[in-house]
Amino acid sequence: MFDNNELRELIARAFSEDVGTGDITTLSTIPRDARISGRFIAKEEGVLCGIDIARAVFEYADPAIELEALLRDGDSFGAGDVIARVRGRAIPVLTGERLALNFLQRLSGIATRTRAETEKIKGTKARIVDTRKTTPGLRVYEKYAVRVGGGGNHRFNLADGVLIKDNHIRAAGGIAKAVAAARLRAPHTLKIEVETENLAQVAEALEAGADIVMLDNMTTQAMAEAVSLIAGRALVEASGNMDSRDLYEVAATGVDYISMGALTHSVRALDISLRFDEGSQGA
Amino acid sequence: MFDNNELRELIARAFSEDVGTGDITTLSTIPRDARISGRFIAKEEGVLCGIDIARAVFEYADPAIELEALLRDGDSFGAGDVIARVRGRAIPVLTGERLALNFLQRLSGIATRTRAETEKIKGTKARIVDTRKTTPGLRVYEKYAVRVGGGGNHRFNLADGVLIKDNHIRAAGGIAKAVAAARLRAPHTLKIEVETENLAQVAEALEAGADIVMLDNMTTQAMAEAVSLIAGRALVEASGNMDSRDLYEVAATGVDYISMGALTHSVRALDISLRFDEGSQGA
Amino acid sequence: MFDNNELRELIARAFSEDVGTGDITTLSTIPRDARISGRFIAKEEGVLCGIDIARAVFEYADPAIELEALLRDGDSFGAGDVIARVRGRAIPVLTGERLALNFLQRLSGIATRTRAETEKIKGTKARIVDTRKTTPGLRVYEKYAVRVGGGGNHRFNLADGVLIKDNHIRAAGGIAKAVAAARLRAPHTLKIEVETENLAQVAEALEAGADIVMLDNMTTQAMAEAVSLIAGRALVEASGNMDSRDLYEVAATGVDYISMGALTHSVRALDISLRFDEGSQGA
Amino acid sequence: MFDNNELRELIARAFSEDVGTGDITTLSTIPRDARISGRFIAKEEGVLCGIDIARAVFEYADPAIELEALLRDGDSFGAGDVIARVRGRAIPVLTGERLALNFLQRLSGIATRTRAETEKIKGTKARIVDTRKTTPGLRVYEKYAVRVGGGGNHRFNLADGVLIKDNHIRAAGGIAKAVAAARLRAPHTLKIEVETENLAQVAEALEAGADIVMLDNMTTQAMAEAVSLIAGRALVEASGNMDSRDLYEVAATGVDYISMGALTHSVRALDISLRFDEGSQGA
Amino acid sequence: MFDNNELRELIARAFSEDVGTGDITTLSTIPRDARISGRFIAKEEGVLCGIDIARAVFEYADPAIELEALLRDGDSFGAGDVIARVRGRAIPVLTGERLALNFLQRLSGIATRTRAETEKIKGTKARIVDTRKTTPGLRVYEKYAVRVGGGGNHRFNLADGVLIKDNHIRAAGGIAKAVAAARLRAPHTLKIEVETENLAQVAEALEAGADIVMLDNMTTQAMAEAVSLIAGRALVEASGNMDSRDLYEVAATGVDYISMGALTHSVRALDISLRFDEGSQGA
Amino acid sequence: MFDNNELRELIARAFSEDVGTGDITTLSTIPRDARISGRFIAKEEGVLCGIDIARAVFEYADPAIELEALLRDGDSFGAGDVIARVRGRAIPVLTGERLALNFLQRLSGIATRTRAETEKIKGTKARIVDTRKTTPGLRVYEKYAVRVGGGGNHRFNLADGVLIKDNHIRAAGGIAKAVAAARLRAPHTLKIEVETENLAQVAEALEAGADIVMLDNMTTQAMAEAVSLIAGRALVEASGNMDSRDLYEVAATGVDYISMGALTHSVRALDISLRFDEGSQGA
Repeated sequence: MFDNNELRELIARAFSEDVGTGDITTLSTIPRDARISGRFIAKEEGVLCGIDIARAVFEYADPAIELEALLRDGDSFGAGDVIARVRGRAIPVLTGERLALNFLQRLSGIATRTRAETEKIKGTKARIVDTRKTTPGLRVYEKYAVRVGGGGNHRFNLADGVLIKDNHIRAAGGIAKAVAAARLRAPHTLKIEVETENLAQVAEALEAGADIVMLDNMTTQAMAEAVSLIAGRALVEASGNMDSRDLYEVAATGVDYISMGALTHSVRALDISLRFDEGSQGA
Repeated sequence: MFDNNELRELIARAFSEDVGTGDITTLSTIPRDARISGRFIAKEEGVLCGIDIARAVFEYADPAIELEALLRDGDSFGAGDVIARVRGRAIPVLTGERLALNFLQRLSGIATRTRAETEKIKGTKARIVDTRKTTPGLRVYEKYAVRVGGGGNHRFNLADGVLIKDNHIRAAGGIAKAVAAARLRAPHTLKIEVETENLAQVAEALEAGADIVMLDNMTTQAMAEAVSLIAGRALVEASGNMDSRDLYEVAATGVDYISMGALTHSVRALDISLRFDEGSQGA
Repeated sequence: MFDNNELRELIARAFSEDVGTGDITTLSTIPRDARISGRFIAKEEGVLCGIDIARAVFEYADPAIELEALLRDGDSFGAGDVIARVRGRAIPVLTGERLALNFLQRLSGIATRTRAETEKIKGTKARIVDTRKTTPGLRVYEKYAVRVGGGGNHRFNLADGVLIKDNHIRAAGGIAKAVAAARLRAPHTLKIEVETENLAQVAEALEAGADIVMLDNMTTQAMAEAVSLIAGRALVEASGNMDSRDLYEVAATGVDYISMGALTHSVRALDISLRFDEGSQGA
Repeated sequence: MFDNNELRELIARAFSEDVGTGDITTLSTIPRDARISGRFIAKEEGVLCGIDIARAVFEYADPAIELEALLRDGDSFGAGDVIARVRGRAIPVLTGERLALNFLQRLSGIATRTRAETEKIKGTKARIVDTRKTTPGLRVYEKYAVRVGGGGNHRFNLADGVLIKDNHIRAAGGIAKAVAAARLRAPHTLKIEVETENLAQVAEALEAGADIVMLDNMTTQAMAEAVSLIAGRALVEASGNMDSRDLYEVAATGVDYISMGALTHSVRALDISLRFDEGSQGA
Repeated sequence: MFDNNELRELIARAFSEDVGTGDITTLSTIPRDARISGRFIAKEEGVLCGIDIARAVFEYADPAIELEALLRDGDSFGAGDVIARVRGRAIPVLTGERLALNFLQRLSGIATRTRAETEKIKGTKARIVDTRKTTPGLRVYEKYAVRVGGGGNHRFNLADGVLIKDNHIRAAGGIAKAVAAARLRAPHTLKIEVETENLAQVAEALEAGADIVMLDNMTTQAMAEAVSLIAGRALVEASGNMDSRDLYEVAATGVDYISMGALTHSVRALDISLRFDEGSQGA
Repeated sequence: MFDNNELRELIARAFSEDVGTGDITTLSTIPRDARISGRFIAKEEGVLCGIDIARAVFEYADPAIELEALLRDGDSFGAGDVIARVRGRAIPVLTGERLALNFLQRLSGIATRTRAETEKIKGTKARIVDTRKTTPGLRVYEKYAVRVGGGGNHRFNLADGVLIKDNHIRAAGGIAKAVAAARLRAPHTLKIEVETENLAQVAEALEAGADIVMLDNMTTQAMAEAVSLIAGRALVEASGNMDSRDLYEVAATGVDYISMGALTHSVRALDISLRFDEGSQGA
């Protein structure tokens, strides 16, 4: 799902950030051979995401720690449900606890929100997709959480999709010229998307051979007209503050994709805690 | 405020993540010597944070780009206010736009929320502080945003503060032993904080010589009693789902600090956009 | 054209590799303030590529070194032509010489070969493109050299294009299922290419809605039939040991792209030397 | 033979380059538990080099992949010969395929060429050695391939050998002064080599106490005279466009070493493919 | 005790530094499957420190090497004592030997010196602590060695303790203002230490609420008076060229801590050697 | 003298180590625009080394800081001499102070010791050289300090010199075989050194064609006999606890080199301080 080696580097940096020169509290109070066990418990309902990352965090701290997942990414849970069990040497478990939770809570927050948004447009052909408005350093994982929540991914970076906006159009001298320039220079494996703000631009984009037409900040009615004008000759993506719109209404216009930056730029961490078993310590 | 060299490394990774093998759209449509200018505009009211990071993003893309800030970190703004102007070669400006905004929106979101929470406890001696529930990779910047919003910082990592929790206490054989162990092993420059859940533990922590007593998930009344019991012999910190509490009431108990994870774990990006000036392109 | 910051990292690694703990010969024989000047001279005809990388190599060695380019990437030259002049402190110039040449000779070799192949298919609509058979660590630069030579780029990595081969088809249970699976999972900004070996597969790929059909190792006649069958409903790419084929004949079948691994996997370095001016040394 | 830890870093960078944000085709079409097996098959005759690197590539993708080598580095093979078998989970095997082949084809190309050149001078005492004209980032591996093909290695970098060229001589004020300066400053564990272009310089280098005399671009007859003049008092190395010379004739002059840049700067990848077994997929 | 992952990175850099492009002597003379065994032997008496780092060095060279420790960090030994045994493939053992010894000798040197200083103040309540005068890159390990020798650690870096010196005082406008500013800005988990040079400053620091008072370069009598003045209201640290003072006399004044830069800035490597068993080589 | 880019990386790591998440004392007490100036003053006599590294430390902290050196590396100074002046913004100057001193004191300590040892053998032809017993991470700089002090450098790493010891000899089956194996495998630019413990081995090494003969732990008389036996046919290096020997006596035997590990493994930091000018702060 994502590259284990790159994940390990992310975790290494995150550990360095969170631990600094050493978890002085744990090192000074916990015997080196003490063991501990505990359970990840959901404090509210949601969709799980990031359990393998939590496992990787503990493995980084100590390869001998065992994390047994009772649920898998994409599974729903209710308040009070046990998500996973962890056991191992107490020092690395306690040192890794916060970091594991930081990942799990954030990614589960994204997956949960995505699923909720997806539910709203059930019955339409539209699909919720993310944007590049992700947290610096975490894009691959946040986009994974969107997929886990049932959404789709827009481009991962500026190299794996052509998205021509007004500045590009102006600089190139019009939509037709911008599309032609991209066609010449970009790998032929990439589609060309054009951002439009009105029906005249939609028509122009179609004419220029755009593979995808983005309808940016249009009224629902304008979207419906655009869909009708495009008539299947290009994919259609609705965009622009979609978190403040009636998603079903937007989806019902017949667009193929609805992109929502809020899925990743305004995340509420899901409340998950790690509760340790009494008496689990001691050599 | 933060290390420019480390910031540059963060930006390098973020660019690599966001740009991949090249901003194919911009490179294919924009002439190499085209120039552009634009303004960062607030779409809602808030507290600015991250303008120097936005500048560093553009400098990374091209040292010749100029970002002129009209506001400084910590300044308030209203919807429609112009925050800063940017001008330079169009290609690097457009390539860096999203990343600059991703930082600016997130950090301003944190500063704005922090200021709002801080307002709630005006008139008390308490201070809002953050936690370690930050985004992996961004801690130093998110904690800076908390300061910009008027909050204080709890420890930056597990090495610059001793925080003894129940697992440490149990493993060490009681609060007194845990505190003594930490006193022996930790640098003498660090205070020792003990997490307590009831008055008996508060008393025990005081007895053990704790420098700070954390009151975790206590009722307002219990907090007031704890403050009275401690009577200035240690600093007092209220903690535990503080975002669902009446902050003024908590503060009024006389605690010194109120720590809130939500300041950084559930950020809503502030709506700021970069609007380019018409006709700014062309060599 | 490519990211200056990433280029600098590549050069840093290459310097470390080539210099080790220090250019002992130069450091022991050349006075610290001695200066030198010289010219890059072509020893055979070709197409220039990499002059900005050569400049970056010297800038890395010493920001004060000046490299004045007389030709630009993409320009043709004959044996004996002067490509550029360099001047600066003798120690860093001599230390960087070999590395600058290693880049310049390799990339110019690729550009020269690409232009030669491109000439062969003049008058057809086909375009020569590269593959992923590049030198580990140098892909972005080798693909740049292909563009400089007049070729196009196939995907840069496994994430910016979908290319379904026989193993994918078999595992997915047929071309239609494989295409559908990719359509669901991949960003909608990517085209879907299917590798085919005969007309039956071509028909199946078309039916499945492939955006690009690759004709792998087909006879010229089979290619012509495939082109005729596809009839503009998908892009067509010819592939498979194209360096041993009559390229014009292949192009004349009407394919859109001809991909050639040999452009980058079997490079002949172009003979370019750096000749220093007599008497240019001495403080 | 080379440092496993550094090899792993090279592979990590190469994977990042080749995979980007994920092998979208394979991830979307291949079941997570599908397995695959295949054989590396030579499509032309040659000398194997790089099989341990190919193994390391697959191990990086997934430590559980098994690569069973039927031949070892240095072994000869004919067209159609099976070099190795690979088996494991289909996803990492397919993702790593191209990278493993990129290394194997390039290094085997170098070893094969080196052996061919070495064959030409059989019966003489001369030895073919490489130069610093290697691919940036791959020097240690390319020099290994030269050894595998039966050649020797010249210095690995500017620190593990002193090679005084005309610029050094001019700056130092003559061969004698340059040699003396190097003798004073360089570790006493390094030999001192002087590049010469005619017999007068050869004599001067000998006089100065050079340990190795390089004969650069001399005629065969001049070389023979130089060898005779030197008479065993220093090692002798022939250099300068040696790929366009009659190597046996050069070797027959009695030189000790013949250095050839073309061994590594103009590599033809050997044609090796990875053929998967039918029906090897499916859970 | 320290982060295994960071230790591994330190060792990786140290190997790269010590091995360069390969241990040419060992690789050319030792058969690949030859094995070797040997003993680490103390050549003088001392306190062991770094045995786990020595083990990590060999593990980095080859995970199959076994290092069996006969003593643990903190144990005393006499001249001739065997500290540990090592066995494994001869090539990686020989390649790693020097690096393992470089760590072991340096850290044991620090631990031995620390214990000697600590012995001098036995019977007093004072404790010897280190400073930030450590070797760049090795601080965590050198401070560990101080603990192993029975000393304590001062702050690990500029972030985990506040230490207000004369420049800070002057810039802030006096001790009281400096302490107040630090109190506002620093995490409340940190103590505030003030450097003083005379009794007036000591009084002022106390007044300002300093948690720790440093007595810098004071006479023994002045120290005694300061201790008496402070009377337990703050911790007291003696500092300034303590290696040239009568430590017992200093300790007897009643100070809590004596900080000594010499523990880490002027290390004498302890003489430990690795003696190989005769006849241990050969396949 | 050393690679500025690598030095910068070393400084970056050292800063990260010494500063952590921020110099909290300085940031909270010093106004952002306050300026400061000061002088590096020698507290004892010695030889300067590392002034350019100190400058690079400050430049890393803030490129606008100016360090004006009054002495150059290699210059002698007495107690009280001013070495350099520094001026700039107070915050980065104070943050960098300790790190600059840590480098300067250590390297000057090495240079001073080296010069002292070198003085002892004046009048002989012998030269003091260093070893690989350096501080992990600082080798290039410590070896530079040895040169600054008038010593010479032995090999920088295991790749730039062949040094055959008893284990290599035993594994290879004798000195002759070991030398031959190294001759075949090592670059021909490297000399071959053989470690010997008695005259029989000296004779054998000579016979095998060793370029350098190391006399390890021999008596002065044995050394004299060895020198006489070798009679100029190889270089001669005396080695083994040379810091406890009468160096002049050793040198007088006629050896070419005396290698001393103590130059770098047991460094006493030279006492140098940075004294700030009164009243230099304030905007």
